Amino acid sequence: MVAEKSQKDPKEYLPFLNTLKKMETNYQRFTIDKYLKRYEKAIRHLSKCGPEYFPECLNLIKDKNLYNEALKLYPPNSQQYKDISVAYGEHLMQERLYEPGGLVFARCGAHEKALDAFLACGSWQQALCAAAQLHLSRDQLAGFGRSLAGKLVEQRKHRDAATVLEQYAQDYEEAVLLLLEGAAWEEALRLVYKYNRLDIIETNIKPSILEAQKNYMAFLDSQTATFSRHKKRLLVVRELKEQAQQAHLDDDVPRGRESDLFSETSSVVSGSDMSGKYPHSNSRISARSSKNRRKAERKKHSLKEGSPLEDLALLEALNEVVQGTEKLKDEIHQILKVLFLFEFDEKGRELQKAFEDTLQLMERSLPEIWTLTHQQNSAAPVLGPNSTANSIMASYQQQKTSVPVLDAELFIPPKINQKTQWKLNLLE
Amino acid sequence: MVAEKSQKDPKEYLPFLNTLKKMETNYQRFTIDKYLKRYEKAIRHLSKCGPEYFPECLNLIKDKNLYNEALKLYPPNSQQYKDISVAYGEHLMQERLYEPGGLVFARCGAHEKALDAFLACGSWQQALCAAAQLHLSRDQLAGFGRSLAGKLVEQRKHRDAATVLEQYAQDYEEAVLLLLEGAAWEEALRLVYKYNRLDIIETNIKPSILEAQKNYMAFLDSQTATFSRHKKRLLVVRELKEQAQQAHLDDDVPRGRESDLFSETSSVVSGSDMSGKYPHSNSRISARSSKNRRKAERKKHSLKEGSPLEDLALLEALNEVVQGTEKLKDEIHQILKVLFLFEFDEKGRELQKAFEDTLQLMERSLPEIWTLTHQQNSAAPVLGPNSTANSIMASYQQQKTSVPVLDAELFIPPKINQKTQWKLNLLE
Repeated sequence: MVAEKSQKDPKEYLPFLNTLKKMETNYQRFTIDKYLKRYEKAIRHLSKCGPEYFPECLNLIKDKNLYNEALKLYPPNSQQYKDISVAYGEHLMQERLYEPGGLVFARCGAHEKALDAFLACGSWQQALCAAAQLHLSRDQLAGFGRSLAGKLVEQRKHRDAATVLEQYAQDYEEAVLLLLEGAAWEEALRLVYKYNRLDIIETNIKPSILEAQKNYMAFLDSQTATFSRHKKRLLVVRELKEQAQQAHLDDDVPRGRESDLFSETSSVVSGSDMSGKYPHSNSRISARSSKNRRKAERKKHSLKEGSPLEDLALLEALNEVVQGTEKLKDEIHQILKVLFLFEFDEKGRELQKAFEDTLQLMERSLPEIWTLTHQQNSAAPVLGPNSTANSIMASYQQQKTSVPVLDAELFIPPKINQKTQWKLNLLE
Repeated sequence: MVAEKSQKDPKEYLPFLNTLKKMETNYQRFTIDKYLKRYEKAIRHLSKCGPEYFPECLNLIKDKNLYNEALKLYPPNSQQYKDISVAYGEHLMQERLYEPGGLVFARCGAHEKALDAFLACGSWQQALCAAAQLHLSRDQLAGFGRSLAGKLVEQRKHRDAATVLEQYAQDYEEAVLLLLEGAAWEEALRLVYKYNRLDIIETNIKPSILEAQKNYMAFLDSQTATFSRHKKRLLVVRELKEQAQQAHLDDDVPRGRESDLFSETSSVVSGSDMSGKYPHSNSRISARSSKNRRKAERKKHSLKEGSPLEDLALLEALNEVVQGTEKLKDEIHQILKVLFLFEFDEKGRELQKAFEDTLQLMERSLPEIWTLTHQQNSAAPVLGPNSTANSIMASYQQQKTSVPVLDAELFIPPKINQKTQWKLNLLE
């Protein structure tokens, strides 16, 4: 068989065959399978050749990326199993697959390596399990806890970071500060009472709450401004496009006319897009905004005035502003509660009103922006007895309108869920 | 003025005026405003009459529900402020507004009442703050912690319940059990290592993980079955409706024909809707299912065979099955990790494959079910240079198709997010 598959001259492979004959059976089989590039089989045979061949085996495993297959060949508590696992984990780490890497390390008892891997990806619970198995001193554990908390703050997991600091670094004070940074007011209060440090309420909690209230006010302001600007521009663009279409039908106007129309009107709306340029750098809101900014960069359509799909871009941007506001409901509810609790009733009322106004502005504008719904609503349609989902779709389809499918959802207005209880009636 | 507004005979109100004249100014004003039903003003005057009039004032406040207004009349640290607050809180509790009630109690220092209110609504952090201010004994606090944890389990907040048991009842063992019930595997492991009780891994954690794997397998089975059944029926219903429509056009068939057609075919699909009838009663999955069941009861359209909007009901049900499966991704990822960690590779692979198959089945079927997208996709449409969101909508609109607006979203296929990393490549 070797002879068959080989491209070599008989003169060359005869010595090879002679060498083979002198080998121990398993090593012989290994050599043949390796020669035939059947590596999975090859390592199976090599694994039976005894521990002195293990280094050769491990090299082949690494070389051909056969870790999973190789692990099945050794009992889980053997040294070889551990060695292969460590090599596997290191391979995964190189590929930046930290969590799987950590799992492989943890599973074979390479706790120190597991610790690094889980720390790298912020798998904090697994990281702490690994740390426990290293029997660190109290100080070492505290130090590790601090690194871990830092990583978690980077990932904006303030609650988890606080848990680590409180329970593994015995630093509830820093934990409270992280909770405030993460707008987890009630959890911060719980810790303050748990450790009977009510002074922190005056020194940190109240100032943080007031600061956050200010930030929310500014954020809502900017959301409202962006929303109104985009909406206004959308109505202009639609008007212009319809005029252009009309002109096109009437006069068979040459191409290029449309874009002229657009540049003429570019002074209609002044100011650039402010969304995502929220000024406060260490607040929760600004983190959200910078995420939005990155998201905005991934957008499909350009908001640039006069760009051919500007109307779609505006719909998209409007959708995002509405959804961003809708998502604030829980956070707003949380801060309203503590504003009331600490008798900042005026600040609470102010925020509640601003949020309500913002939501109402958006809600009232939905039918103007997502006009399909608007028109159908006013026509009070009834579903015919014989119409089916199929027939409805077919009738849409007969129009052969050219909406790119991926944009279809742009034509569905975003949901403003009336049922979400964000309001605090105490502040009415 | 009193005379003007009064309907009484001068003979009657003259004695009233005489009584008024004898009164102290503030009480006089109070009496007049009360008489004129200007209650807000009335309590303002009465509040100035001195403490002996406070009971009368409080009665009026309660009677006319003027708590918020009244609280502004007394300094926050006065006994009157506290009395009004307590009355307010009790009023809110009667209205089952437990959280606002708790906040009102907490704010005026009525910690015992605040505790009950926060316990009733599961505001566990606030409840623990209130408890701290009652200076309970260690045993009392532990007992309260247990009640609170019970409430949180009812609300399926297993992690919070575990935190309470660990930190306030010093019962980390029970905490671990709750975490397992809530499928919070990594958090359970963290506690086990924190308290160096590795024996729990064998006695509880591994069995729970294996049990959960089995439950997920069964759940996926049932999701797949429901999905396939609904899909099959949808295609039948569409076919029948088109035939009926055709027949209607051809022969001007009398009404009622359509429903006959449907009852004839009711034997095509056998078996009732199984979704939500998942058998395991104490698992996380069954809780989800029973939620689904309640949700299903709220459905707009009937899945009953032959019901006029059966196709919409089927679309709705299919959408829900897909979304329910999509939402499992994170949970599946979590359990796959621990299955791998504890070397249950086979079980892990089995679940991973079942989940992947389920997702693929759904994905492949989307274009058949949500046909608008399908047809447009195959036509590879381009957006015309002059079309606007407006014109597209208008052209849809010209068809005067009669889709009820609220159902519009049924025609958008549910999203199966390809980017969610649920898979564990280690188990490939």
